[in-house]
Amino acid sequence: LAARLTISIDGMGGDDAPGMVVEGAARALERLAEVEFLLVGDEERLAPLVGGFPALAGVCRVVHTKEVVTSEEKPSAALRTGRRSSMRLAIDAVAAGEAAGVVSAGNTGALMAMAKFVLKTLPGIERPAIATYLPTLRGETVMLDLGANVVCDAENLVQFAVMGEVFARNVLGLDKPSVGLLNVGEEDLKGHEEVKRAAAILQQSGLPIRFHGFVEGDDIGAGTVDVVVTDGFTGNIALKTAEGTAKLFGVALRSCLRGSLRGRLGAWLARPALLAFKRRVDPRRYNGALLLGLNGVCIKSHGGTDAIGFANAIRVAVNAAREGVNEGIKEDYAKLVAHRQNGPQAVAG
Amino acid sequence: LAARLTISIDGMGGDDAPGMVVEGAARALERLAEVEFLLVGDEERLAPLVGGFPALAGVCRVVHTKEVVTSEEKPSAALRTGRRSSMRLAIDAVAAGEAAGVVSAGNTGALMAMAKFVLKTLPGIERPAIATYLPTLRGETVMLDLGANVVCDAENLVQFAVMGEVFARNVLGLDKPSVGLLNVGEEDLKGHEEVKRAAAILQQSGLPIRFHGFVEGDDIGAGTVDVVVTDGFTGNIALKTAEGTAKLFGVALRSCLRGSLRGRLGAWLARPALLAFKRRVDPRRYNGALLLGLNGVCIKSHGGTDAIGFANAIRVAVNAAREGVNEGIKEDYAKLVAHRQNGPQAVAG
Repeated sequence: LAARLTISIDGMGGDDAPGMVVEGAARALERLAEVEFLLVGDEERLAPLVGGFPALAGVCRVVHTKEVVTSEEKPSAALRTGRRSSMRLAIDAVAAGEAAGVVSAGNTGALMAMAKFVLKTLPGIERPAIATYLPTLRGETVMLDLGANVVCDAENLVQFAVMGEVFARNVLGLDKPSVGLLNVGEEDLKGHEEVKRAAAILQQSGLPIRFHGFVEGDDIGAGTVDVVVTDGFTGNIALKTAEGTAKLFGVALRSCLRGSLRGRLGAWLARPALLAFKRRVDPRRYNGALLLGLNGVCIKSHGGTDAIGFANAIRVAVNAAREGVNEGIKEDYAKLVAHRQNGPQAVAG
Repeated sequence: LAARLTISIDGMGGDDAPGMVVEGAARALERLAEVEFLLVGDEERLAPLVGGFPALAGVCRVVHTKEVVTSEEKPSAALRTGRRSSMRLAIDAVAAGEAAGVVSAGNTGALMAMAKFVLKTLPGIERPAIATYLPTLRGETVMLDLGANVVCDAENLVQFAVMGEVFARNVLGLDKPSVGLLNVGEEDLKGHEEVKRAAAILQQSGLPIRFHGFVEGDDIGAGTVDVVVTDGFTGNIALKTAEGTAKLFGVALRSCLRGSLRGRLGAWLARPALLAFKRRVDPRRYNGALLLGLNGVCIKSHGGTDAIGFANAIRVAVNAAREGVNEGIKEDYAKLVAHRQNGPQAVAG
């Protein structure tokens, strides 16, 4: 039986908070056992919402605060003035050992800044990265960094590779995930200096990482590797470009089908198949990105998500806490550091 | 009536060359008037292929050479040793005034290196960029750089903005195209130094460019702006990510429809609508990227394209030559330089 786990939730983060958050928590419960919630935010608004879901009310404690971090706030300002905000108190609960992980759909930069300040990074990790998994032709692929670090050097990319590999093993349950570095070509000569240096380090690291080499943008959807590593600028733009393309396709498909009687009839007949298709590429199923490299489980939900997406983010938090992703990263990263300081025998020994 | 125009074609570039190239030229002719071709490559192979298309044979002269640039060749090596290659001779024809533009589906790096060496860049343009247009929810959007320049500074990005704007006006026929800089957020604080500096320059340039500010990855598909400007690393990855996502969608849709009798029946009924959808998002319709900033029209076709895609690349070359894209860039860029040296009055005067 799984151990009882508490997840703290920023009740006020997200475009449609707090309604979307509370409904999301209730939906998450339907598929989770032995989980409790600390729900942080305005009690006057949260309590009645929670009351609407009896199963949730039984396992949810509201922690009251009136303060919130807005989506426009600068990370540095939020860090300085938001010490009583719902986001901050939800993170504090993890640091205090009252919760095994935190979920927020609020301001990404503020969440990263606060979580880094409160939880600290794992030993040897300079910069945490935002990681998620995406649908591909072959299943699912982990991608990071998705925007935490706009400029990255080779060392950062190598750290992301280690963190992403552990994430893929523990959260996606892959046995020996392959890792690729995102680049503009597959040849060794292509790309900028940092990505080439990162590849050289990964090829020589001696870590038990299955390093594939470089991959290109279309390899993300093809599922060529299990983990795609890139800097936060490129990763954020690639992720959002994929989202935009998906939306364009959905809209174009719908408008073509609606444009004729035969199209409408066909779509009606094929409705179950079209719904299955929609489910398969539904971005809400992939909502919930890990802030990887922190000394604690911290999940960022898309700000514009709905209850179904938020429920998924909560499940990602529960999985990450139960599977000990951070412990795995800590161990693997220590091995890498030892190896690079002392040579391969240090890893073997 | 349009003036008679000659386009030189690298007959041997592309995965399925020369067959795909010759058929592509024949197809392009169906929708072009007053156009002739110089087809460069192995006459023994090209002549019989051309003979299969009588309309083409009437307006096509084969320029014989046995040498080719392979897809694996390094740009520097191709430049040094490929002086009698089909790619190089096709470019030479533009420099010699025998052709108004050149099209190749061969090695991108070699094409850029040779074209830059032979044709030179326009005055004030340090680095040419690869530009194309893509389907969006609102129509079509120009994007550059797609991979010519892996590392770009603010000045390069500003030059790309000027070139992209002129391209959108002349080739897409937009009256006052809006220009956005690709970034990880819309706020002024987001992004790395070069993209922020480029935005500051564009805001103060006084050029008649409608500068929208920053856009994000999902704005590409949404068509938020008419021109998306980015560095070649990010642009190449964004473009290929979009292609990969499109492929994933197509495959997932097909497999869902085929998975049930109702799905298969519905798809049969909706077949005309599904074909219209497929045409609308068909990447071949968008094949043919301009090497912008060169003193001559040079078009790169996707190496893996077929005759339909190659025909489109030829049409892009014809349009770019007829619309005087390079002359427009030369004028607008001169204005920008004058403005930044002497203040806004120099532009007005």
